[in-house]
Amino acid sequence: MALQPALVLEKQHDLNLRDIEVPLHTGPGMVRIAIHTVGVCGSDVHYYTHGRIGPFVVEAPMILGHEAAGTIVEVGEGVTHLKVGDRVCMEPGIPDANSRASRLGMYNVDPAVQFWATPPVHGVLTPQVVHPANYTFKLPDHVSFAEGAMVEPFAVGMQAASKARITPGDTALVLGAGPIGTMVALAALAGGCARVIVADLAQPKLDIAAQYQGVIPVNIRERNLAEVIGELTEGWGVDVVFECSGSPKAWESVMDLPRPGGCIVVVGLPVEPVRLDIAMASVRELRIENVFRYAHQYDRAIALIASGRVDLKPLISETFAFADSKAAFDRAVEARPTDVKLQIRVTAE
Amino acid sequence: MALQPALVLEKQHDLNLRDIEVPLHTGPGMVRIAIHTVGVCGSDVHYYTHGRIGPFVVEAPMILGHEAAGTIVEVGEGVTHLKVGDRVCMEPGIPDANSRASRLGMYNVDPAVQFWATPPVHGVLTPQVVHPANYTFKLPDHVSFAEGAMVEPFAVGMQAASKARITPGDTALVLGAGPIGTMVALAALAGGCARVIVADLAQPKLDIAAQYQGVIPVNIRERNLAEVIGELTEGWGVDVVFECSGSPKAWESVMDLPRPGGCIVVVGLPVEPVRLDIAMASVRELRIENVFRYAHQYDRAIALIASGRVDLKPLISETFAFADSKAAFDRAVEARPTDVKLQIRVTAE
Amino acid sequence: MALQPALVLEKQHDLNLRDIEVPLHTGPGMVRIAIHTVGVCGSDVHYYTHGRIGPFVVEAPMILGHEAAGTIVEVGEGVTHLKVGDRVCMEPGIPDANSRASRLGMYNVDPAVQFWATPPVHGVLTPQVVHPANYTFKLPDHVSFAEGAMVEPFAVGMQAASKARITPGDTALVLGAGPIGTMVALAALAGGCARVIVADLAQPKLDIAAQYQGVIPVNIRERNLAEVIGELTEGWGVDVVFECSGSPKAWESVMDLPRPGGCIVVVGLPVEPVRLDIAMASVRELRIENVFRYAHQYDRAIALIASGRVDLKPLISETFAFADSKAAFDRAVEARPTDVKLQIRVTAE
Amino acid sequence: MALQPALVLEKQHDLNLRDIEVPLHTGPGMVRIAIHTVGVCGSDVHYYTHGRIGPFVVEAPMILGHEAAGTIVEVGEGVTHLKVGDRVCMEPGIPDANSRASRLGMYNVDPAVQFWATPPVHGVLTPQVVHPANYTFKLPDHVSFAEGAMVEPFAVGMQAASKARITPGDTALVLGAGPIGTMVALAALAGGCARVIVADLAQPKLDIAAQYQGVIPVNIRERNLAEVIGELTEGWGVDVVFECSGSPKAWESVMDLPRPGGCIVVVGLPVEPVRLDIAMASVRELRIENVFRYAHQYDRAIALIASGRVDLKPLISETFAFADSKAAFDRAVEARPTDVKLQIRVTAE
Repeated sequence: MALQPALVLEKQHDLNLRDIEVPLHTGPGMVRIAIHTVGVCGSDVHYYTHGRIGPFVVEAPMILGHEAAGTIVEVGEGVTHLKVGDRVCMEPGIPDANSRASRLGMYNVDPAVQFWATPPVHGVLTPQVVHPANYTFKLPDHVSFAEGAMVEPFAVGMQAASKARITPGDTALVLGAGPIGTMVALAALAGGCARVIVADLAQPKLDIAAQYQGVIPVNIRERNLAEVIGELTEGWGVDVVFECSGSPKAWESVMDLPRPGGCIVVVGLPVEPVRLDIAMASVRELRIENVFRYAHQYDRAIALIASGRVDLKPLISETFAFADSKAAFDRAVEARPTDVKLQIRVTAE
Repeated sequence: MALQPALVLEKQHDLNLRDIEVPLHTGPGMVRIAIHTVGVCGSDVHYYTHGRIGPFVVEAPMILGHEAAGTIVEVGEGVTHLKVGDRVCMEPGIPDANSRASRLGMYNVDPAVQFWATPPVHGVLTPQVVHPANYTFKLPDHVSFAEGAMVEPFAVGMQAASKARITPGDTALVLGAGPIGTMVALAALAGGCARVIVADLAQPKLDIAAQYQGVIPVNIRERNLAEVIGELTEGWGVDVVFECSGSPKAWESVMDLPRPGGCIVVVGLPVEPVRLDIAMASVRELRIENVFRYAHQYDRAIALIASGRVDLKPLISETFAFADSKAAFDRAVEARPTDVKLQIRVTAE
Repeated sequence: MALQPALVLEKQHDLNLRDIEVPLHTGPGMVRIAIHTVGVCGSDVHYYTHGRIGPFVVEAPMILGHEAAGTIVEVGEGVTHLKVGDRVCMEPGIPDANSRASRLGMYNVDPAVQFWATPPVHGVLTPQVVHPANYTFKLPDHVSFAEGAMVEPFAVGMQAASKARITPGDTALVLGAGPIGTMVALAALAGGCARVIVADLAQPKLDIAAQYQGVIPVNIRERNLAEVIGELTEGWGVDVVFECSGSPKAWESVMDLPRPGGCIVVVGLPVEPVRLDIAMASVRELRIENVFRYAHQYDRAIALIASGRVDLKPLISETFAFADSKAAFDRAVEARPTDVKLQIRVTAE
Repeated sequence: MALQPALVLEKQHDLNLRDIEVPLHTGPGMVRIAIHTVGVCGSDVHYYTHGRIGPFVVEAPMILGHEAAGTIVEVGEGVTHLKVGDRVCMEPGIPDANSRASRLGMYNVDPAVQFWATPPVHGVLTPQVVHPANYTFKLPDHVSFAEGAMVEPFAVGMQAASKARITPGDTALVLGAGPIGTMVALAALAGGCARVIVADLAQPKLDIAAQYQGVIPVNIRERNLAEVIGELTEGWGVDVVFECSGSPKAWESVMDLPRPGGCIVVVGLPVEPVRLDIAMASVRELRIENVFRYAHQYDRAIALIASGRVDLKPLISETFAFADSKAAFDRAVEARPTDVKLQIRVTAE
């Protein structure tokens, strides 16, 4: 254990940048990483403002932050694919490699996953952490730390795009242009869609998404979404709907939007159970896929960023110094429609 | 047009065996069939008792019956795979071959489908009908007309089993042991499941299903279903749930029953929208498939019956003469738990 | 029938721009099209130089050309999605809508397909043709006729990319940087690959492919391909190999290049049977997919071009006037490594 | 280490039942098993007769046997799903749980797999062995040890059936009615096929396969296979061909047998590279799948045996006492066409 500064959520509404004990022993198969950049995620903010997410309750001081990139400073025994000095980003969830789900290749649905900044597990808004090498990924030279810290939210979009089983040239619809909806739209385009209709009420969010070639923004305050889809698809419907809004209102009509034989990928989690119109889903034989975090997406996400097929840099709205971490969170609480991703630079360099 | 006797639903509650005009011209690509046996389906009964199913309303006299087998008596121009004397069964739905859905191979979701005994289209409880040869399938010599008339409901089970994408050796759960639930259970076993748990409240229905090797009946009045599944799967959950009950109560807990990464196939149509627990579906990354009738299942269903892999004969509860058609329907209205399928023998031979 | 000028292959080596009878009656479900632009395909050239391709032998004068775009000048009865003046491109293959393959959605493998410029069926290097509306696709306003005439070869790439079942972020390898290999590379990128390694012996071809973001050119005269792949994938192998060279030499080592569980998509047709190293394919459990033309790809290809996700314009090497059609073919016979696609502008406008 | 009797292959042609040192320490996650029954596999016999299989050469004394069932006699730390006295069968391959292939769920293609009775790894024809609990599977009470020892070869059939992605009601063809071909045929039927045509030259082998409902035996000395398939499928072809013969002759015509869009699963390994007719595979857009051992099949195989959907008992041709192990191998070398599986009962009980 070592004492080092960290952004600690003491309890709901109580955030401190202060010293705390962090385990830094680099055992076999582990690496020690000097954290460079950490993104602020909606879940971090939610623990700050609500003290809990569903069954996960902050009952002891917890370091926040799980979207991170940094530099290897020590490698444990048996680690061969990483060395000191490598620039990396990290998957925040650590599954049990021997669980039934992990052995089947679905480690994300292993109930034993330990996930950064999910009580009682510490996050990484702190100078150094130790992590399994298997969940630590090398960044190519021309991919920045800031981009590396974007891999985590983009991996959620990648998981959604993978579940959709896109056929090249598909037309998709993303409901909700928040950070996750935007990530999903980019992953859907990179993953084979010809065009992605992005629907939201907030014009500034739509304007950000509309920067990307292939995105068709629809402000649903102004236009009837079903009509727009009808025009764009000659009345056929979209191949895939990505529901990223989590809004019960979206669920009321979501079944009307896919084509016969189409697909709905559920990314946004509504707080309450939703009403599902089975008759409509049935008559079109819709497939509904659910997404929980991601598995095996980091290397694919990095490859897309590295080759230039996906550019996440325009989504980084502002970067804060580590000393200003609290200010970053207070800005995130404001939820400005022009903010997509706020990041904190932990290192002084 | 020709005048011939038929079981005609004049309007709700008003059923007559009487003469009616039926078109019997055998055009190009068509065949004329002497109907031998017709099964009584729940939808036929529902039109009788309610006069409508959803948007489909009986507004003019309509012949009932759509689960049929018979003998070819005339073949139209260009028909090569059938000849007079062939014993056949028929798909009751006729799609537009040029619709976008049909060309993609999904003719069942073509909105233009004309379906027997769905207003205003006549059914086939009458001595002769004309039908497209493409939707008419030859029965092997050792498959009886009675079995041929079972192909239609079994095809629904086949469509559900196909949508599930069963991996050989899967464990499935069927909720609801009515005629469709039982068909689905048999299709799931024939389609690769090692065992199918069938859950219902009615012991006589479970007893019928339990005749089949691989079926594990569970009376949910007596046992907690989640517990039974936990025991049978070492706490992992079933690979596939086939929801065949259409019961809102089933929907309350259905998300708890599949394994992580498992699948729910929705066969039963609830009258009202159901409440869906997205959070539970998400954490297990469930796939939800919907089923609408069937496409490309008849030849497969016949092959399974012909090879002896599926035996539907035990499900034929009683056979009525054509003259007793009304009695058959009144018996079906009783909904005896020991009745699976009632059939009417149209021919006198 | 109407007499109109056309580029006619009289027999091997004998090409004439002369008048010929062409059927122009616009029956039900058909459209008449004024041809604007036609691309020169390797198969057209092969009929010119060899008089045959496999079992297809030029035994009577045949109009060449099957990669075409134009304008609707007449619509037949029952055609609703097209009108006079629409700018369109056309699928050159016309299947039997009632064949078993077509009804299953795989019309490309229907043995009854009639394909333009495949003996004895005429092609479309002529001012007007009649075609089924179902296989005629509207071009968006900002997609040029030249791009419209590129949809046919790009559809081959799309079929290959679809068969590969790309997971977003995959790394692919294309063997052979000819016109089809280049189309496949672009379809693979548009279809979800992060990067596509393109391997060839001819540097000018590689230079053309290398214009596209995500393409990694490898000149196999200079570098060992297996080594390059090892470096780029940390010894894992590529997710997909698209074999587009048709070269027996490529087949000698192709099994060594995919990752365990990876895929080989065979696009190039070798003249002779190839030697397949099953042991190597087995130990990695490779999946091998074959591609024959395309099905259901035109609308998807057009969507990708229209949204800007794919830019085929840099692949149009030169455009010839209709009067210079023969010169276009003689240039194509040269097979300059800097030529990807030569086109002929049939219309004078 | 403990000294215990074992069937040891000293070198090619030299088999001894003698004492040898076997490691019996039951570490964390491991179980110790008293071996009850071991099947004789073709690969065991091949090491005996040839001293090698491909790159695997017997260079030191090696215990034979890898198809085994027994009883747990000790459980290591952390093992929760097994206890002393449990009747079990074991997967003979032990992968590295941290390899890239294993983490993706494809542990069978992990190059680091240690496989029983594959040089230099010992097999299990000996009274006790230690094995990872994760690869040890409990047998239901009514599944015998003899059946348990059949799970290994049946798992090969299951892997092939899984790769085929059978649609319920498919028609399959198995080329080669040896032990593996027969296992594949049973797995294909259990996995959803309506009927499986089994083709071989040896009538006694066909007679054994023909005991099973759904198997259609074809003696290719007497009948033309392509003709039989044409008759049985109305000229369409089979949905799946399982190539289990490993014969170059089979490869000459195998591409002619599947339907358009069908599949070939390669199970039998030819000694030399085979000639593949790509043109034929292309025109039908065939999918070719390769199989290497199995992954995640044991629990599924046991479930099918336990539920009675698959009965492997008729395939156990004779059982030898441990003392007669050498005789069992010499009988296996005879390769009697009436022998499917020979087993050795290691325990005296």
